[in-house]
Amino acid sequence: MGKLLIVGTVAFDAIETPFGKTDKILGGAATFIGLAASQFDVESAIVSVVGEDFPEEYINLLKNKNIDLSSLEIVKGGKTFFWEGKYHNDLNSRDTITTELNVLADFNPVVPENFKDANVVMLGNLHPSVQMSVIKQMEKKPDLIVLDTMNFWMDNALEELKEVIKEIDVITINDEEARQLTNEYSLVKAAAAIHKMGPKYVVIKKGEHGALLFHNNEIFFAPALPLEEVFDPTGAGDTFAGGFSGYLASTNNISFSNLKNAVIHGSNLASFSVEKFGTARMEDLKREEVNKRLHQFKTLTQFDIKLT
Amino acid sequence: MGKLLIVGTVAFDAIETPFGKTDKILGGAATFIGLAASQFDVESAIVSVVGEDFPEEYINLLKNKNIDLSSLEIVKGGKTFFWEGKYHNDLNSRDTITTELNVLADFNPVVPENFKDANVVMLGNLHPSVQMSVIKQMEKKPDLIVLDTMNFWMDNALEELKEVIKEIDVITINDEEARQLTNEYSLVKAAAAIHKMGPKYVVIKKGEHGALLFHNNEIFFAPALPLEEVFDPTGAGDTFAGGFSGYLASTNNISFSNLKNAVIHGSNLASFSVEKFGTARMEDLKREEVNKRLHQFKTLTQFDIKLT
Repeated sequence: MGKLLIVGTVAFDAIETPFGKTDKILGGAATFIGLAASQFDVESAIVSVVGEDFPEEYINLLKNKNIDLSSLEIVKGGKTFFWEGKYHNDLNSRDTITTELNVLADFNPVVPENFKDANVVMLGNLHPSVQMSVIKQMEKKPDLIVLDTMNFWMDNALEELKEVIKEIDVITINDEEARQLTNEYSLVKAAAAIHKMGPKYVVIKKGEHGALLFHNNEIFFAPALPLEEVFDPTGAGDTFAGGFSGYLASTNNISFSNLKNAVIHGSNLASFSVEKFGTARMEDLKREEVNKRLHQFKTLTQFDIKLT
Repeated sequence: MGKLLIVGTVAFDAIETPFGKTDKILGGAATFIGLAASQFDVESAIVSVVGEDFPEEYINLLKNKNIDLSSLEIVKGGKTFFWEGKYHNDLNSRDTITTELNVLADFNPVVPENFKDANVVMLGNLHPSVQMSVIKQMEKKPDLIVLDTMNFWMDNALEELKEVIKEIDVITINDEEARQLTNEYSLVKAAAAIHKMGPKYVVIKKGEHGALLFHNNEIFFAPALPLEEVFDPTGAGDTFAGGFSGYLASTNNISFSNLKNAVIHGSNLASFSVEKFGTARMEDLKREEVNKRLHQFKTLTQFDIKLT
C-alpha cells in the first residue's frame, strides 16, 4: 500500500446545468481527487484550507473515506472558497458566475510529517507557487509527482507555472490548455513541446472525447465511456486525476504500461462522477460498480486483429 | 475472397487548406472507398458516372487497383461532378465554394451482372433514391449493406432517406448528423433511435475524435490515430467506409467482433488519407505501411488490467 499526498482546493460549489441547480454543495479539486483515490488501497492525505463555515458533515464524509485531514487548515472566522458556475446546453462549456477565493487567498500549505515520504504527490489545480511549496517540503523524492493546472495560471502566473512544470513527472491538462501552453495546434506536437519543459508524461484530457497519454514517442488513448446522459461535468477532471494517481500510489509501479492502466482507471471513475451533481455519485460508489464498468471499458476498446 | 459493390461519386475536387491549394484533382466518395478497399483481397466494382472531361489517367489509376469499372458510365459531352471547398484553420470545418452536379444530376446507376451477388454493398453518399435503386437491383440479398449519408439529404430528401435506412444493415454518419436525424444530443440515445429505424449497426464518425460502433447494447470505440499534422481531411470518411466495407467483404465474416476489426481497419486507412491532398497518399500506399500502423493502433488502445 502506497502513500498519496493530495494538494488542492476543498470548496463550496453552486452548479447549474440544463437538468437542475444546486445550492452550495461540497466541491473542490482535492475533494474529488480524494474521493476517487479512496477506491484504491492507499493511504491518502489532503493538504488544503477551509473556513469556519465548512460543515462538520463534509469533514466526516472525507474522514470516513480514510483520508487524513490533519493538514486541512480550518481558518477561524474565515470563509471557504466558493465557485458558482452555469453549464451551457451541450455541457461542453460553462460560465463562471462567482469566484470567491476567501481563505484560499492566503493559503500556506503544510505537508504532514507522515506524508513527507509519500510515493505519489498529486498537485491539484492551484496557484503554481503553492504547488511548488509542497514539492519543496517533501523529504524523500516521490516516485511520481502529478500536476494539474489550468489556463487561468497560464494567463496570470506563467513564469511560476513553468518553474513548477520543470519539477514534475506527469502533467494533466486539457486540449485547449495544451495548445495555449505551447502554441501548437497538433496535440502530438504540443505534447512533444511539453516533454521538453520537464514532464516525462503528458496527459491531455479531451472531456467527452477521452484522454491521451504521451511518453516520448509512445501514445496511449483512453476513451470516455459513452453515456446516455452526462448530468454534471463538475469535478470530472479531478476525479480522473484522483483515479490516476490513487491507482499508481496503490500499485507502487510507475512503468508506462501501468500508467496506461491508471489512465483507464481515471477515465472509469470520471464516468461515474458526471452522473450526479457534485460529489454525490462518488460518495457511495461501490467497488463492484467500478469493476463492472472496467469490463465495459475493455469491451469498448479491445479488438482482435492478428498482426503480422 | 468476397465481392464488394461500391456506389458513389467519382468527381473532381478543388481543395484549399491552411497548407495549400489544389486545382481540379481526383475526388469522389466511390474513388476514396475503392482505393481504401483495394488494400484487401476483394473483388470490387464502382457504379458511378463521369463526363467526357474525366481523364483516362484517373480511369487507369482505378483499374490498376483491380477495380471493375464496367459500370462507370461516361456521358458523351457531359461534365464530371465538381466540388470546391476551403477548410478553416483548425481543419474541423469547411466552406463549400462550388458544387456543380453536372452528369450526376441524371445519374441512373446500373449494377453490373457479375456484382448482383456481391456479399457486401457499400452505398456511398448520394441521393437516397439512387442508393435505393442499387439495393433493388441486387439478385441475391447481400450479407451486409452499408450506407453513408449526410445532412444535405436530411434537409432535402428525408423521407427517401428514411426508406433506404430501413433496408440497410450498417449506417455510417457523423456525430452532428446522428443528432440531426434523431433529435437526440447523447450519441448513445441517437444510436438507439437509429437502431429503431432499421440498421442493426450504427457507426458514428467523430473525425479526429474517432468512431463509435453501436450494436444493440454493445459499444466499440476506435480512436483516430493522433497525427503530428492533418494535411487534408477530404475523403477521410469515405476512406474509413472503404476500409470498413473492404475488410468485411474480404473476410466474409459479419460477426460483431469482426465489425470491430473493420472499424479499426477503416480508422487506420483514414489516418493515411489525411496526410496528403486528395487521393495522393492512398494511390501508392503499401501494405507494409498499413500493417505497421495497425501495430500503433494496438499500442494506442490495448491495456492490461486484470479484471475481477
